[in-house]
Amino acid sequence: MREALAQAAFELFTERGYEQTTVDDIVARAGVGRRSFFRYFPSKEDAVFPDHDRCLDDMTAFLKANPGDDPVAAVCDAARIVLRMYTANPDFSVQRYRLTREVPGLRTYELSVVRRYERALAGYLRRRFADAPDGSLRAEVIAAAVVAAHNNGLRSWLRSGGEEDPEAEVDRALSFVRDVWADAANGDGVGPSGSGTGVLRKGVGDGADGEVIVMVAPRNAPMWRVIQSIESTLSEN
Amino acid sequence: MREALAQAAFELFTERGYEQTTVDDIVARAGVGRRSFFRYFPSKEDAVFPDHDRCLDDMTAFLKANPGDDPVAAVCDAARIVLRMYTANPDFSVQRYRLTREVPGLRTYELSVVRRYERALAGYLRRRFADAPDGSLRAEVIAAAVVAAHNNGLRSWLRSGGEEDPEAEVDRALSFVRDVWADAANGDGVGPSGSGTGVLRKGVGDGADGEVIVMVAPRNAPMWRVIQSIESTLSEN
Repeated sequence: MREALAQAAFELFTERGYEQTTVDDIVARAGVGRRSFFRYFPSKEDAVFPDHDRCLDDMTAFLKANPGDDPVAAVCDAARIVLRMYTANPDFSVQRYRLTREVPGLRTYELSVVRRYERALAGYLRRRFADAPDGSLRAEVIAAAVVAAHNNGLRSWLRSGGEEDPEAEVDRALSFVRDVWADAANGDGVGPSGSGTGVLRKGVGDGADGEVIVMVAPRNAPMWRVIQSIESTLSEN
Repeated sequence: MREALAQAAFELFTERGYEQTTVDDIVARAGVGRRSFFRYFPSKEDAVFPDHDRCLDDMTAFLKANPGDDPVAAVCDAARIVLRMYTANPDFSVQRYRLTREVPGLRTYELSVVRRYERALAGYLRRRFADAPDGSLRAEVIAAAVVAAHNNGLRSWLRSGGEEDPEAEVDRALSFVRDVWADAANGDGVGPSGSGTGVLRKGVGDGADGEVIVMVAPRNAPMWRVIQSIESTLSEN
């Protein structure tokens, strides 16, 4: 029933336009009564985004279950749950993206949905950073950065009409955030498990790929200077 | 006239509640006709936030005039224009903050205002990063981070009832973002002036602080692994 209503609503929105379609039109098309509509959707806008509530629940459950030795990685993975909701139905997602661009009321609704995801991510990070200096600030900034990166990748896929590889787009965008925040997430600059070293040493030990970089830096250099130096060395060669 | 209408509207919203106040109530209190209201404000929500349009114009003009040898600093300064709008009238800002918390329609309106600021900042950064790889992604993520940091500082001041030092709160929050993004803002890994490498070499060359770290990694190691390894090394010693 819920799906039939969402389906009918979307057909009518694309046929006649969003503003021109009433709830009465939708229930007539779906062959149900008006009260059934409001049992499933508080408003016409909600019928355009029928899966966000479930997706938000999934995200919350995922974060709750996450042991979280790497909180920034965890919120990036949580953001990917939203991506999968979009990619589960590419045609619908692309059409809805086009519809949303045209209807100011839907854009506003979408903003409030995005904000709810952001708050869920920030809430998780706030708990994880409870003991860090400026934990709440870190949590909110990182959540906003993750959401912005995810949406940049998602939009790029939607604008392509669903042609590009959505996972690759979003992975690239999220890596950008992860790389930058891997350091800043922890106030003291100490990483969670040190597992990176093992991987790196393995790379050197078995001689795979051959090339290595050797980096010399003052111990007290801020992390961004170190990164800048590494990137600069890589781009010189 | 515009100010008198905003004043009347706000008095009524706090006296009777937002939902219980009509545009007719507002024009009666201000002693003007109904059409005057809509000449200045498209909706009741707009009367609650009468200065955002002007503030957005100021921000746009500021960014346009900014020579911008440091784009991240420029958007942080642009965000401070919003702070100054709030601090210009602390009592009103604090009362409005409380009202907005209570009225879902105002929260939604505020989200769309925040989004407009974010778009202005992102648009500026996108132009500044036009030649950088992933310039659009960088622009959107940094704009979102700056807005989140600004709002964290601003909210902290508003929640205190306007008691704390708002400039200090927001400066601290924006510094957090600036420190992290100072490096990432430039796609090629070379800072605005290439100063990062210079600082590191200087640190080694003159023997200041003595200690150095030497890091070996496969050339193709992802940046987050490299960072993790450095952090792990630092924490071991």
